Amino acid sequence: MPISHYYALDVNRISVGVLGASGYAGQELCRLIAHHPGLALAFATANEQRGASVRLGGRVVQYIATDDAPLHDVELVFSALPHGASKVWVERTREAGARAVDLSADLRPGNGCDGIPYGLTELNRELVAGASVVANPGCYPTSILVALAPLVEQGLIPGHATIVVNSASGVTGAGNSPKRELLFAEVSEDFRAYAIGNTHRHLNEMRATLDGWGGGASSEIVFTPHLLPVARGILSTIVVPLTEPLADPLQPWRDAYDGEPFIEITADTPSLHDVRHRNVVRISATPLSGLKSPMLLVTSAIDNLMKGAAGQAVQNANLMLGLDETAGLPA
Amino acid sequence: MPISHYYALDVNRISVGVLGASGYAGQELCRLIAHHPGLALAFATANEQRGASVRLGGRVVQYIATDDAPLHDVELVFSALPHGASKVWVERTREAGARAVDLSADLRPGNGCDGIPYGLTELNRELVAGASVVANPGCYPTSILVALAPLVEQGLIPGHATIVVNSASGVTGAGNSPKRELLFAEVSEDFRAYAIGNTHRHLNEMRATLDGWGGGASSEIVFTPHLLPVARGILSTIVVPLTEPLADPLQPWRDAYDGEPFIEITADTPSLHDVRHRNVVRISATPLSGLKSPMLLVTSAIDNLMKGAAGQAVQNANLMLGLDETAGLPA
Amino acid sequence: MPISHYYALDVNRISVGVLGASGYAGQELCRLIAHHPGLALAFATANEQRGASVRLGGRVVQYIATDDAPLHDVELVFSALPHGASKVWVERTREAGARAVDLSADLRPGNGCDGIPYGLTELNRELVAGASVVANPGCYPTSILVALAPLVEQGLIPGHATIVVNSASGVTGAGNSPKRELLFAEVSEDFRAYAIGNTHRHLNEMRATLDGWGGGASSEIVFTPHLLPVARGILSTIVVPLTEPLADPLQPWRDAYDGEPFIEITADTPSLHDVRHRNVVRISATPLSGLKSPMLLVTSAIDNLMKGAAGQAVQNANLMLGLDETAGLPA
Amino acid sequence: MPISHYYALDVNRISVGVLGASGYAGQELCRLIAHHPGLALAFATANEQRGASVRLGGRVVQYIATDDAPLHDVELVFSALPHGASKVWVERTREAGARAVDLSADLRPGNGCDGIPYGLTELNRELVAGASVVANPGCYPTSILVALAPLVEQGLIPGHATIVVNSASGVTGAGNSPKRELLFAEVSEDFRAYAIGNTHRHLNEMRATLDGWGGGASSEIVFTPHLLPVARGILSTIVVPLTEPLADPLQPWRDAYDGEPFIEITADTPSLHDVRHRNVVRISATPLSGLKSPMLLVTSAIDNLMKGAAGQAVQNANLMLGLDETAGLPA
Repeated sequence: MPISHYYALDVNRISVGVLGASGYAGQELCRLIAHHPGLALAFATANEQRGASVRLGGRVVQYIATDDAPLHDVELVFSALPHGASKVWVERTREAGARAVDLSADLRPGNGCDGIPYGLTELNRELVAGASVVANPGCYPTSILVALAPLVEQGLIPGHATIVVNSASGVTGAGNSPKRELLFAEVSEDFRAYAIGNTHRHLNEMRATLDGWGGGASSEIVFTPHLLPVARGILSTIVVPLTEPLADPLQPWRDAYDGEPFIEITADTPSLHDVRHRNVVRISATPLSGLKSPMLLVTSAIDNLMKGAAGQAVQNANLMLGLDETAGLPA
Repeated sequence: MPISHYYALDVNRISVGVLGASGYAGQELCRLIAHHPGLALAFATANEQRGASVRLGGRVVQYIATDDAPLHDVELVFSALPHGASKVWVERTREAGARAVDLSADLRPGNGCDGIPYGLTELNRELVAGASVVANPGCYPTSILVALAPLVEQGLIPGHATIVVNSASGVTGAGNSPKRELLFAEVSEDFRAYAIGNTHRHLNEMRATLDGWGGGASSEIVFTPHLLPVARGILSTIVVPLTEPLADPLQPWRDAYDGEPFIEITADTPSLHDVRHRNVVRISATPLSGLKSPMLLVTSAIDNLMKGAAGQAVQNANLMLGLDETAGLPA
Repeated sequence: MPISHYYALDVNRISVGVLGASGYAGQELCRLIAHHPGLALAFATANEQRGASVRLGGRVVQYIATDDAPLHDVELVFSALPHGASKVWVERTREAGARAVDLSADLRPGNGCDGIPYGLTELNRELVAGASVVANPGCYPTSILVALAPLVEQGLIPGHATIVVNSASGVTGAGNSPKRELLFAEVSEDFRAYAIGNTHRHLNEMRATLDGWGGGASSEIVFTPHLLPVARGILSTIVVPLTEPLADPLQPWRDAYDGEPFIEITADTPSLHDVRHRNVVRISATPLSGLKSPMLLVTSAIDNLMKGAAGQAVQNANLMLGLDETAGLPA
Repeated sequence: MPISHYYALDVNRISVGVLGASGYAGQELCRLIAHHPGLALAFATANEQRGASVRLGGRVVQYIATDDAPLHDVELVFSALPHGASKVWVERTREAGARAVDLSADLRPGNGCDGIPYGLTELNRELVAGASVVANPGCYPTSILVALAPLVEQGLIPGHATIVVNSASGVTGAGNSPKRELLFAEVSEDFRAYAIGNTHRHLNEMRATLDGWGGGASSEIVFTPHLLPVARGILSTIVVPLTEPLADPLQPWRDAYDGEPFIEITADTPSLHDVRHRNVVRISATPLSGLKSPMLLVTSAIDNLMKGAAGQAVQNANLMLGLDETAGLPA
């Protein structure tokens, strides 16, 4: 198989590039693009591994330095660069005339950059479709906000409620930079909370988004992430007060997400296996029994590299480029 | 090594027996007894595997039928029989004149059996020491109640508070009866909530115990257990409202558990690795930032087969038999 | 989503059925058929779970009893029934006028059923293409025989050689019937050999196939399988004597498998990750240094449910039905 | 608990130190010493983590720089320093008047350092007992040489035989320096061979030892290690030609290791679970059926950090210091 950092140009495909393509999210982007019927990967950058060839999605990709990225040759750039390093490359991409989907936190709400459409696709579809730059949501916020939105929008959460969220993520969420605490012998057979005391940086993003929604403005969130001994997947377990009991606990989601190709509402509690390698949010809800006031247990599962990162990025790019929103995305 | 279901009698050791010794808790009991300086295993029963020999704790144990257990020959019996089947054997043990530690739920508070001392050792030490029968706590309640007790006892939880508990357990908590959902290929790389909606049977035990404590009578608990792809360990993540902020968030536990050999208070969040094969509850607490009223995040880790089952059972038996409470127990 | 055990008939797709569709191989077949551009799943049988609906490959499948399978309505049947139970259903399939791919061992060489084409596709392509019944190879034999064939065919193994094969398989190879030794807590952190002493039933199949090849008739094989704590994948590590040193150790495979879409020859040693969810055999070879006579180390990796079972079955069905051999198969 | 890098001196215990105590083997040494009835840990060094405190075996250890190790204050030093760096510290230890057990490869046979007793304890007990320096064997060689020795010593392997060894090791064998290929997401669900083509550096050690044994001088060894997704344990699967069939395949080991406390001979094939946290080699052997000349399958399991490193090091130290050979070692 000939190795090249340029794929043969296909006039029927739209050229895109990936910045930061050696991390887990960047690799997943390359895989999705390789199988996408309407996109062609023009370049993939990875400074430390530049020159190296890897097989991703059945294609051989040769990494180039980020400084060598031919931004002018593509219509859209996915940036999976680290937080802090991404913003400047989104600007360069714009200067080169290409659109950008930024997977870093740099442009997300709550991080000092207002006005950039936030790519929770199902909730911001029109804004995303017309955008030149989209801030792709974090993995935890995707699993949590997509689950909470129907309750907030339908005014089902009482004022000044405390929403308690426990999430557990597979280790790919922590990236593939070598760290001792991520070694197999450290993670296997272990489980721990981290960023305890409401200190995770995704909280800004979630609070800003909740604030932006009318009904959720006065709610508070308690968020505790945990590290799971699995490669991929996030499960969020959410305890939320209700203004009143629901006749059908799934009704708010059925109403909000009717016909959505990437939202699954299920009576069974979702598990990580249900969503592996799929670009979906799978949601369930159950009344909490034995309490004086009504509360709901909402559980939500995503694949952190798919709907939590690369999958949702492609979903947003599809909209931005006028393609079928579901193109190239396994549901 | 000669195989016998009777160990050579040692006049300096107290004879004990294990009913239901082929499950994970029963096996762990046999291991602990094998290494215990003051106990000798007189019999171990396992109806399905009767006649089989297994090596547990460096000793070869030959299982006998439960009906063949020589209850008269021992001073104390550990029953690790299934819930529902255990109670009658505790009665037979008493009729035979021996003491009993029941690891099943049959005699625990909230399950219709009042008056039996509940073996949360650190909280009920005197009752346990004088008891002829002790109801050994469930694994989840141990991790949760030992963590909550100081806050309740010291009146730090406001009235009518909702305490939100998320726990995650290794698969040995589900026993070793063959079930499809516990196969390696089903559990590996997965994570899920179960007994959702406040329906886990351990809730009775927890509510009854909280009700028995003065300060906790009006609190409500939301409890969601999860199944982890690990063999052993439970981590409980507890969000609890406070009457007022704490200057030192660990102070309630330091006050309550000063000098306790099996309680560890730590500034770092505990993980399952910290407690593997150890008879401890490891607890941390951190204020939750960004909230209008004070709340605390409490995390608590145990080995579900040790402090969550067999270890605490031996700790209770040590007290009942007048032995050093820590004898034979790895801290 | 409407649930039906009949998919809407698509005049452009060929109707096929799956017998024994609740095991791991049967489920994988349903997933592959769901994504196949030329096949439509007409039925899926599972006696114990009949009536149950499961989502496989994005489609909801409702299991029916095997006795209720409408064999006359399909052009080809995949049988993933247990060994011993499959043969009669292949006969019934033939009587109903449909072709059959049998994933059980019943019709494979060495098991008393001669004359049935053995579906190691790359080695028996013409026989398979014209067959009405194909015996789909075992997972271990696929990983081993595809790796050995070039050496045998090119006369590179001396007479009376002993070939030492160690294979390690993920647990899905053992099926999903509940067994204690396959529980997560038993398999995790463990590794063991089984069927020791050259007693695995796949040996018949391998020996009969080697005997059928001219050059391999006098070779002996030592085969030791092992159980890995992974869900899927087989790695075979093969030590084989050579008649003479090879200038390029990969040349025999390059010559034999030039242009093959599902065979990968690689200088790096293959690993299970390389082949996950892919219908390939990935092979490497390295001379063994420090020995008096030339020997080669050959390593071979497959996904046991893909090229080792369902994937190769679809590859064979594609040939039998006149479809593109690669249709619906991820390479 | 007061934190100190010096334990209170106990006149009844022998002071020892550990160089390189932050690696997996060094940590295991500290744990074993903490529980040892006759040893007291005087210091533990770890340059990168100097000043840090860790809990090992129930004791808090504060690491010091290796240059600060008070070598004169101890009777024996365990060096778990990296290969290449250890030798000079063994020399300094000797100059300070202390004995040394070197866990690195620096002083092992085949590595240019002749005359240092090789600490395969059961095979070199007298040499070890009188030694001032012992080269502690590698993990793979321990699992393989202890298994092969009885066959070699009893002349049961024919001249010019090829012995084929496949070993699989848990990841702690690769140390805890952060490397991408050892991250959880890379190792989990994977399995691969490495050091292929007879290139592993433990081969020198094994060949030199076999050469030193009369009967094995002319045998050749093919050795292929593999990386397992488990934390600890090594299983070696050995195919060895025999001069003649054995009436009882276990007899050679029964004869050679009668009464050995740390060697287990078993009819069942050993698994990693059987030996976890134990200082044993567990061995089985089975005739290989269906072959023209007699061959034996020998399987051998160890815990790589116990009998494969720290456990055997303590066993050797016990002999060197005149203590009970089994003191402080779980069998």
